[in-house]
Amino acid sequence: MEIVKKRIGIVGGGQLGKMMILEAKRLGFYVAVLDPGADCPAHSICDKHIVAAFDDPKGYAELAEYSDVITYEFEHINAKALEDLEKKGHVIYPSVTALKTIQNKNLQNIALEKNQIPIPRFSLVTNTDEIRECGKAENFGYPMMLKATTGGYDGKGNALIKTENDVEDAFKQLGNGAIEVMVEEFVDFEKEISIIACRGINGEKVVYPVAENTHKNSILDVTAVPANISQEISDKAADIANKVMSVFEGVGTFCIELFETKDGEISVNEVAPRPHNSGHYTIEGCFANQFENHIRAIVGLPFGDTSLIMPTVMVNLIGESDGPARLLGLEEAYNDPSVHVHYYGKSESKTDRKMGHYTVVGKTIDDTLHRAMELKKVVRVVGE
Amino acid sequence: MEIVKKRIGIVGGGQLGKMMILEAKRLGFYVAVLDPGADCPAHSICDKHIVAAFDDPKGYAELAEYSDVITYEFEHINAKALEDLEKKGHVIYPSVTALKTIQNKNLQNIALEKNQIPIPRFSLVTNTDEIRECGKAENFGYPMMLKATTGGYDGKGNALIKTENDVEDAFKQLGNGAIEVMVEEFVDFEKEISIIACRGINGEKVVYPVAENTHKNSILDVTAVPANISQEISDKAADIANKVMSVFEGVGTFCIELFETKDGEISVNEVAPRPHNSGHYTIEGCFANQFENHIRAIVGLPFGDTSLIMPTVMVNLIGESDGPARLLGLEEAYNDPSVHVHYYGKSESKTDRKMGHYTVVGKTIDDTLHRAMELKKVVRVVGE
Repeated sequence: MEIVKKRIGIVGGGQLGKMMILEAKRLGFYVAVLDPGADCPAHSICDKHIVAAFDDPKGYAELAEYSDVITYEFEHINAKALEDLEKKGHVIYPSVTALKTIQNKNLQNIALEKNQIPIPRFSLVTNTDEIRECGKAENFGYPMMLKATTGGYDGKGNALIKTENDVEDAFKQLGNGAIEVMVEEFVDFEKEISIIACRGINGEKVVYPVAENTHKNSILDVTAVPANISQEISDKAADIANKVMSVFEGVGTFCIELFETKDGEISVNEVAPRPHNSGHYTIEGCFANQFENHIRAIVGLPFGDTSLIMPTVMVNLIGESDGPARLLGLEEAYNDPSVHVHYYGKSESKTDRKMGHYTVVGKTIDDTLHRAMELKKVVRVVGE
Repeated sequence: MEIVKKRIGIVGGGQLGKMMILEAKRLGFYVAVLDPGADCPAHSICDKHIVAAFDDPKGYAELAEYSDVITYEFEHINAKALEDLEKKGHVIYPSVTALKTIQNKNLQNIALEKNQIPIPRFSLVTNTDEIRECGKAENFGYPMMLKATTGGYDGKGNALIKTENDVEDAFKQLGNGAIEVMVEEFVDFEKEISIIACRGINGEKVVYPVAENTHKNSILDVTAVPANISQEISDKAADIANKVMSVFEGVGTFCIELFETKDGEISVNEVAPRPHNSGHYTIEGCFANQFENHIRAIVGLPFGDTSLIMPTVMVNLIGESDGPARLLGLEEAYNDPSVHVHYYGKSESKTDRKMGHYTVVGKTIDDTLHRAMELKKVVRVVGE
């Protein structure tokens, strides 16, 4: 089949799906989307919108009817439904095997550990006694993290256990045994960095420059590229990213979130089998962005240039309050010609909801960061 | 009204409309399109598609219902219908006054001449005697161009009169007096160059780098930037572009096509009140492209950076034959990571129809041109 005639199906019509479609449409691909939200961000630019829940097998079957290749914009979806489609011969990238492993933080860690990829120590636990056992000085020691093995994102599904006194509360907070949980050694990190990597159907791999991230309330706030790290750390991160793509035989764009520890080591925090918020900077910052290369990967095309055009800073626009969304400060932001604002088109603002982002480019990262930070006072999204 | 809540109406859903929408959607604008083609390139990504002829006042009225600001992707449209809307208070950019002047090559030339902008000598003619009068050595002399004053594009509506013997045929070819025609002095040009310029509602102006164009069968074939011209010519072109934007009080992105003559002068060939094929290079070549800045202009936002990232060459993908469209060589093209292919999504290829384009970037214009030219053998569109 002629490549541009492939119909692409995307599970999820949020901002990541929308940005995938904007790239897919440059080559004229037909795109179908599965999303329960009738006016989700991707709605107005997809060819076919299947309004169905993310756990509804009928919705997945309908998506498959309209798609020659299926991908997804987030990982907390019905892997069983996708698996059934894969068994029927439908093409899904990244593969359901990779998805199922990555969906479960415990399985993800086991796979990474088995392949000598550095991660924090971890242990599946089923009760508070086991958690306390982990907390002993000869094991992980306090503080440590309790994590739901599935369904977590933006800090949800995580609980910090500072001392033994927090054990009961943390266990209750994460379902009191109703869901699978694990303890992870606490990483006293110096920096949070991430790296976007892509792998093709034929195994070809490319990586993007390392990004440096700061979070606020466990939600990504700012990404700066290049990261303020040594060449050695940068090389290590690229090496790890390449290994991760091989371990999962990932086809598409992945994000590998890493910690740089205070003693100059790095360790994988989390792998996402999809384009990632910390890779939005690539739209203006790189010659071919993470969404374009994701589309190229899943349809079987070679990759575009992932190198950095110039220092780039991405800032998330997080809803400050609830109500009909209102974007403030757009004109003032655009008084700086190096600024690009992306507004996802969500009609309702909610506190902590990702409503958009903006990107600033410049000659030096210091100047770019400075201008990006100044704009935070101006460009905001509120609920009216 | 909050800027991002403005609904944008576009007359024309071809590739230019499609590329405008791709930029408009980054900020989440609602976009309605008027186009008679049920599966025109913009169809699948617009919010509302009004299927109506370009001369149908009802279609324009319906477009206005769904739009807070109306623009157009080409100039051969129903100015009267737009004028009626403007009188009713609808906002149209570029203005109908500018459109009506530019639509008519004679009025366009008169406006340019009146403002001391260099153009070839010209004369409205109504019969062959008047054409012969123009051909006299003491007037324009042969060769000269006979041009329909309205409706021409891609060489259509033009006839070259090499000698007096061609006068009758040329006049017949252009309607034998049924339509308004004019004679233009023939410009023995050294180079064809063009410059994209933008002007805001508040009069703010920006220009892009000068592009060098080559045509094949009167259709744009290749655009290379930077143009191989002197700084003096480049400055003159920018100066003319700025003047043209002021003359027409143009709001939006315009293209000014120019000739560089053999004696080192420049003269305006044609003004288009819209983004232009010779500005497609700006998508990969510049920080903010011609479509983004067009959208910014018509909604009242300041402009993005028009400067060149690095040398860029754009090559048109012109249909080689008739039939269901087939894009050849995409995978081979993408073996060069600096290549981006744009495929407009027209289902039918026709000989000489613009089906897509590709862009190559590189460190030097010579190397970039070389790679772009090599790819012409590979990336092609045929009718099956």
